[in-house]
Amino acid sequence: MPKVVFPLDNSKSFTDQQIVGHNRWHPDIPAHVRVKPGDTFRVDCREWFDGAIHNDDSADDVLNAPLPGVHVLSGPIEVEGAEPGDLLVVDILDVGPVPQEDSGPLAGQGWGYTGIFATQNGGGFLTEQFPDAYKVIWDFRGGVATSRHIPGVSFVGIVHPGLMGTAPSANLLAKWNAREQELIDTNPTRVPPLALPPLPDSAILGTLEGDEFNRVAREAARTAPPRENGGNQDIKNFTKGTRVFYPVFVNGAKLSMGDLHFSQGDGEITFCGAIEMGGFMDLGVDLIKGGMQTYGVSENAIFMPGTTDPQFSEWLAFSGTSVTLEGKQHYLDAQLSYQRACLHAIDYLVKFGYTPEQAYMILGASPIEGRLSGVVDIPNSCSTVYIPTAIFDFDVSPGKGGPHQVDPGQGVPKASF
Amino acid sequence: MPKVVFPLDNSKSFTDQQIVGHNRWHPDIPAHVRVKPGDTFRVDCREWFDGAIHNDDSADDVLNAPLPGVHVLSGPIEVEGAEPGDLLVVDILDVGPVPQEDSGPLAGQGWGYTGIFATQNGGGFLTEQFPDAYKVIWDFRGGVATSRHIPGVSFVGIVHPGLMGTAPSANLLAKWNAREQELIDTNPTRVPPLALPPLPDSAILGTLEGDEFNRVAREAARTAPPRENGGNQDIKNFTKGTRVFYPVFVNGAKLSMGDLHFSQGDGEITFCGAIEMGGFMDLGVDLIKGGMQTYGVSENAIFMPGTTDPQFSEWLAFSGTSVTLEGKQHYLDAQLSYQRACLHAIDYLVKFGYTPEQAYMILGASPIEGRLSGVVDIPNSCSTVYIPTAIFDFDVSPGKGGPHQVDPGQGVPKASF
Amino acid sequence: MPKVVFPLDNSKSFTDQQIVGHNRWHPDIPAHVRVKPGDTFRVDCREWFDGAIHNDDSADDVLNAPLPGVHVLSGPIEVEGAEPGDLLVVDILDVGPVPQEDSGPLAGQGWGYTGIFATQNGGGFLTEQFPDAYKVIWDFRGGVATSRHIPGVSFVGIVHPGLMGTAPSANLLAKWNAREQELIDTNPTRVPPLALPPLPDSAILGTLEGDEFNRVAREAARTAPPRENGGNQDIKNFTKGTRVFYPVFVNGAKLSMGDLHFSQGDGEITFCGAIEMGGFMDLGVDLIKGGMQTYGVSENAIFMPGTTDPQFSEWLAFSGTSVTLEGKQHYLDAQLSYQRACLHAIDYLVKFGYTPEQAYMILGASPIEGRLSGVVDIPNSCSTVYIPTAIFDFDVSPGKGGPHQVDPGQGVPKASF
Amino acid sequence: MPKVVFPLDNSKSFTDQQIVGHNRWHPDIPAHVRVKPGDTFRVDCREWFDGAIHNDDSADDVLNAPLPGVHVLSGPIEVEGAEPGDLLVVDILDVGPVPQEDSGPLAGQGWGYTGIFATQNGGGFLTEQFPDAYKVIWDFRGGVATSRHIPGVSFVGIVHPGLMGTAPSANLLAKWNAREQELIDTNPTRVPPLALPPLPDSAILGTLEGDEFNRVAREAARTAPPRENGGNQDIKNFTKGTRVFYPVFVNGAKLSMGDLHFSQGDGEITFCGAIEMGGFMDLGVDLIKGGMQTYGVSENAIFMPGTTDPQFSEWLAFSGTSVTLEGKQHYLDAQLSYQRACLHAIDYLVKFGYTPEQAYMILGASPIEGRLSGVVDIPNSCSTVYIPTAIFDFDVSPGKGGPHQVDPGQGVPKASF
Repeated sequence: MPKVVFPLDNSKSFTDQQIVGHNRWHPDIPAHVRVKPGDTFRVDCREWFDGAIHNDDSADDVLNAPLPGVHVLSGPIEVEGAEPGDLLVVDILDVGPVPQEDSGPLAGQGWGYTGIFATQNGGGFLTEQFPDAYKVIWDFRGGVATSRHIPGVSFVGIVHPGLMGTAPSANLLAKWNAREQELIDTNPTRVPPLALPPLPDSAILGTLEGDEFNRVAREAARTAPPRENGGNQDIKNFTKGTRVFYPVFVNGAKLSMGDLHFSQGDGEITFCGAIEMGGFMDLGVDLIKGGMQTYGVSENAIFMPGTTDPQFSEWLAFSGTSVTLEGKQHYLDAQLSYQRACLHAIDYLVKFGYTPEQAYMILGASPIEGRLSGVVDIPNSCSTVYIPTAIFDFDVSPGKGGPHQVDPGQGVPKASF
Repeated sequence: MPKVVFPLDNSKSFTDQQIVGHNRWHPDIPAHVRVKPGDTFRVDCREWFDGAIHNDDSADDVLNAPLPGVHVLSGPIEVEGAEPGDLLVVDILDVGPVPQEDSGPLAGQGWGYTGIFATQNGGGFLTEQFPDAYKVIWDFRGGVATSRHIPGVSFVGIVHPGLMGTAPSANLLAKWNAREQELIDTNPTRVPPLALPPLPDSAILGTLEGDEFNRVAREAARTAPPRENGGNQDIKNFTKGTRVFYPVFVNGAKLSMGDLHFSQGDGEITFCGAIEMGGFMDLGVDLIKGGMQTYGVSENAIFMPGTTDPQFSEWLAFSGTSVTLEGKQHYLDAQLSYQRACLHAIDYLVKFGYTPEQAYMILGASPIEGRLSGVVDIPNSCSTVYIPTAIFDFDVSPGKGGPHQVDPGQGVPKASF
Repeated sequence: MPKVVFPLDNSKSFTDQQIVGHNRWHPDIPAHVRVKPGDTFRVDCREWFDGAIHNDDSADDVLNAPLPGVHVLSGPIEVEGAEPGDLLVVDILDVGPVPQEDSGPLAGQGWGYTGIFATQNGGGFLTEQFPDAYKVIWDFRGGVATSRHIPGVSFVGIVHPGLMGTAPSANLLAKWNAREQELIDTNPTRVPPLALPPLPDSAILGTLEGDEFNRVAREAARTAPPRENGGNQDIKNFTKGTRVFYPVFVNGAKLSMGDLHFSQGDGEITFCGAIEMGGFMDLGVDLIKGGMQTYGVSENAIFMPGTTDPQFSEWLAFSGTSVTLEGKQHYLDAQLSYQRACLHAIDYLVKFGYTPEQAYMILGASPIEGRLSGVVDIPNSCSTVYIPTAIFDFDVSPGKGGPHQVDPGQGVPKASF
Repeated sequence: MPKVVFPLDNSKSFTDQQIVGHNRWHPDIPAHVRVKPGDTFRVDCREWFDGAIHNDDSADDVLNAPLPGVHVLSGPIEVEGAEPGDLLVVDILDVGPVPQEDSGPLAGQGWGYTGIFATQNGGGFLTEQFPDAYKVIWDFRGGVATSRHIPGVSFVGIVHPGLMGTAPSANLLAKWNAREQELIDTNPTRVPPLALPPLPDSAILGTLEGDEFNRVAREAARTAPPRENGGNQDIKNFTKGTRVFYPVFVNGAKLSMGDLHFSQGDGEITFCGAIEMGGFMDLGVDLIKGGMQTYGVSENAIFMPGTTDPQFSEWLAFSGTSVTLEGKQHYLDAQLSYQRACLHAIDYLVKFGYTPEQAYMILGASPIEGRLSGVVDIPNSCSTVYIPTAIFDFDVSPGKGGPHQVDPGQGVPKASF
């Protein structure tokens, strides 16, 4: 095991740990961990809600999930010698659930969860169709996930961090706040909101205290979106063996990570849509000095995925275009066409006996691929969603005999406002 | 060779053929080809511009490409017994360039082309950055494409039809026209336009003549967008071995196809972005009676891709978020985030010596994957573009030694308005 | 289509063609086809028995198959400038059944066959268990093979030439004859024989005539075995996209090829075990001057397989050791351990309702993999045979419910001496 | 972490552990671990030489490796309810090096070794060419192996147990001993020997003592070869996610395992040819009652490999036939043809600057595939060895420019008798 530079004690909350991490982005959050280029080290990671979601059959915890407190991140980690303009090379040497623990009350101890948020609490990709809160528990066995809430489905986890990134510079942070506030201002009362402004409430900022805490908390960016520094990219292929290249915006780079997922479909469409868990990451770091200029990488991560993800040979795919369910034509809207592709997949799976929520959860948590198939054929974007047929323990392809019927069992726990 | 039910003579134009196809969608275009469920047959296909683009080093033909005349489609083909509500099963038994011909003046005779349209003539995914017309010629050898206009790149073709679909019902057609006109009306003078309304000019409608021709030409939908009937989906994985399930909206289904591509990246981002060519398709058809209801497929194609596409083990990937180049924040706009990911890839490849146009053309024609990685993390969509590193004959990954330098050679032919 | 340098007329026998090929190896068989490094060209190929096997339900033609006349090869092809010591680079640009013909009396016209030879007529890998002659007909549809003689099985063809190679030098040929005769002499009356000596009867030697024919026919090596020049290697991965490097032993290299297979399992265990057919090869050639020394390739082909073979994600595998069925221990005998692994697979498939002959034929023709898993663990070799589960249209894995039962149908045609 | 049913303390030797395992096969070795069908559990495993091989640059420890003491196995484990005739289902839920330990004196603590035995001490696949003892140390980082003794090579580990199996019945054991002795008797003084008879010296038999120990030690079979019970199969694809089906010969099945490998090429050709290490296995077990008869599995393991091994898209392959280096023709000898294919690969790699020992070690430890390509083409067997080109950090394919030159560095430590 590489040296643990950011340890977590599972019996304590995030703010009671030996080193306290953060849940906001700001260049002035101090780094209490320092590594050198070439180093290999371990970072423990907390599931994004710091243990608020339980292994039970009620969705009340998801309904009331404390969104202001996310994402609890491990870091920042200072990389010696890193300067603005460098590329920070991050090797994901390993990533997984809580090591050597197969049971316990914390997500990551042999289990994880997928949630759908209620529209009033963040919503999700298909929040119009699924306005309430739902939760599904997944059990891990030999790297494979199954759920008592969704019969007939199992798949190998493609474990990855949903969130990793470097600290923004003060300048970059100011840009984020300005542009996001401008967007919010176009419809400040929207539910769910257009974006999340800085929020001192529930901010965790490492060892900052007093006035400095207050200042930073007022300025620091929320962690929900991916941005120039990487951040919450939710790229399901950030698996073991991946090499990521991050732009460096501040001295020391200040790398942070968290929001581990046991598995996720492209898009993480149920919002809390991956199989969420705590765990660990083993990382190696290096620097390409001046690499941002040398390689033309001014923002956003470049990466080379690992090679040990499960390979599927047979897929069932659904397509959608950018026309709303009500029949309104949008212009080249890939978000919409992907929604329609996903809704088509749900309509289809329902014919096999699944409830719509079960079908939605399958798309969120299993290793589906979401593709931008056609993006220029005005006015319709065409998106496709590919489901590996091997995740079902029955034949899910269309045929003359009609769909196999699954017994949906107890179904997906639900909670309504 | 299966029976050729829709033959084309390469020495004659599309309208002078034994059976004349069509370039608009309308239920009343008569079918002069009839097949039965269980049949296997061949369809010759013309490249989408009917031979207007030449194997030379000028982009003038792309600049003046006759867009009103696209796409020249083979069909409609009536499937005996097909009724509205059925699913039409289409097996792509084979698809390829012009059989047994490796040279000649027509795209598909051993070569193909990729184009970027000028903003005034349709534009493309990155038309703000690339407002002029460009053309690249690709040569085929053993199923592999190379180009004298882009050194250092070669890849196995993932051959597929860009366009295939069933005829719309009168009702469905009316819906299309209404909703697209409504969109156009929001900005009728936009360049490029928001959508393309029916256009009698250049319409080809099989054997229709006189008043009936005029009526249908006024109503018939353009073929550019994908819609409920499939259509111009540009799904690069509709390769040999694929089974597609189309909804049937009219008696006989009236299947049509064309716009063959030797290769394409997800999104076909240069618009005329695949490697365009003529060729053939060998098809098998069958019916799932009442399948639309049975399987919940009210619209858009479902498909199961073939299994013989080249498999890549190493990818270089770029990410983007829904913030414009000017720094404006958009809300969960996957079209934008994919543009930004593609622009990042172009910025990167330029550092290896490619011109921006060469880099853009590589993304359009080679088997890149475009993924909707994060679609719920307000306000930023995260899209990713994956480039298989094996298409380059040099090491394209970032390293401490800096990028290898390619000699861009003659570069990409360009034409400006 | 590249220029056809070696054409075949399907209505005529091998010896009545415009250019007559050969069925023996000898440096003095004249080349009537000449190509240059860099050239691309097409070669038509005859199925190995020159049309003696028919698309019917009798195995009598296999029983009486004219083995002295095999393999009818296309060539030799002289490569300009090739000299002993060079490496001949051969690109398999395409390979397939008879182009544009889906039906007809010749194997390759939409169908092929797999045979098991009777012990008295050559035998096969499991000839002790299967001493009689059997035949299975496979139909091709969209690159997929199915058989009326084996229900429940279908697979994408991994099309390849069973045989390709350069001509031996006189010296090398003399070595072959000496060493093989020495082996034969250890048991000259064995049935089946240990090796096949030169046989003037049925020899075809291009345009050779008279005394020269007689001399060469007496010396020329049979084509059954693979040897230093490549030859009948039966490597199932010599598919489209493969680059092979052959040692050159004579001026002009004198490349020949034939024995096309629509599909084959590793080992071609039923002897005539691939799906045999005629068809074509599109080839490109080049030279690495002095490459044998430069790369240490004194004999046998080096190759880099193509990348478009179907990928399977799930396999069912069987193991065997080098102990005979009667319980006799052999020393590190991989031939024996592979036989035992294959027999285990047959025992297993029989439990699903297949006849032993059907099971054996599945192993011969479908894309199984045969691996040398352990070769050093004295005294037992361990070989394994991997069957892709996707070739069956039912669940072939072991479970508590017991094996699914296939109706074996008419079964495999058989003929006995 | 599943319950550890067979723990090992790394600071103690194999015989000083809390539960002592065994290094011979015999039905009367008592099981001190008992699990139930459906159970999930962990087993610690010792590297096969119990720590005798060190992380240094001398091969003396390999020269003097204590072969009488191998393989130190964890077990036997009794499975409740298992009876002769059942199939024991074993799920490999996880397998890896020593958990949470990246450094230390024991193989498996962040490193492993590959050895070539001297001819006088067991020899190996190519012992005639490599008669001395050699050792290579491999370091693990993020699941990837590299070696200070072999520059330019790195690969993802395909971690697996070399050895796993059920206990033989008394009857079966007697058969083993009889048939192996019969083989030995044909050449009892051969070096290396033809087989290894029972050897009381160094036998470890769990808790057996006194007369019972002596009796069992005289009868118990050595663990080197694979046999009907599975055993030392060295199947490199027994990776995480694999399900194995073992025949049950005694009540309780008595499952044992060990000889973990970080990586191995097909054949484990250097004998001690995998990357040897200690570590752990997480297993799940179940029973198919009467499954041996139901599925026709009378002996040897059936298995379904996991799906997360790295996938390679480009291979360089070498072929060989069953002719000795001296030119003697053997009859369909796959062992020999695989030796020749491997020797061809070594000849080739040497041209890139590697020493022959380095090349041999690469073939032993990296994920090469060894295939039985042709097994019926008398008199020559054709075997092929496929090397994934991605394991080299330079271009290893043949070209006109000649081979890239590697600096072989310090090379491979050697020791001679």
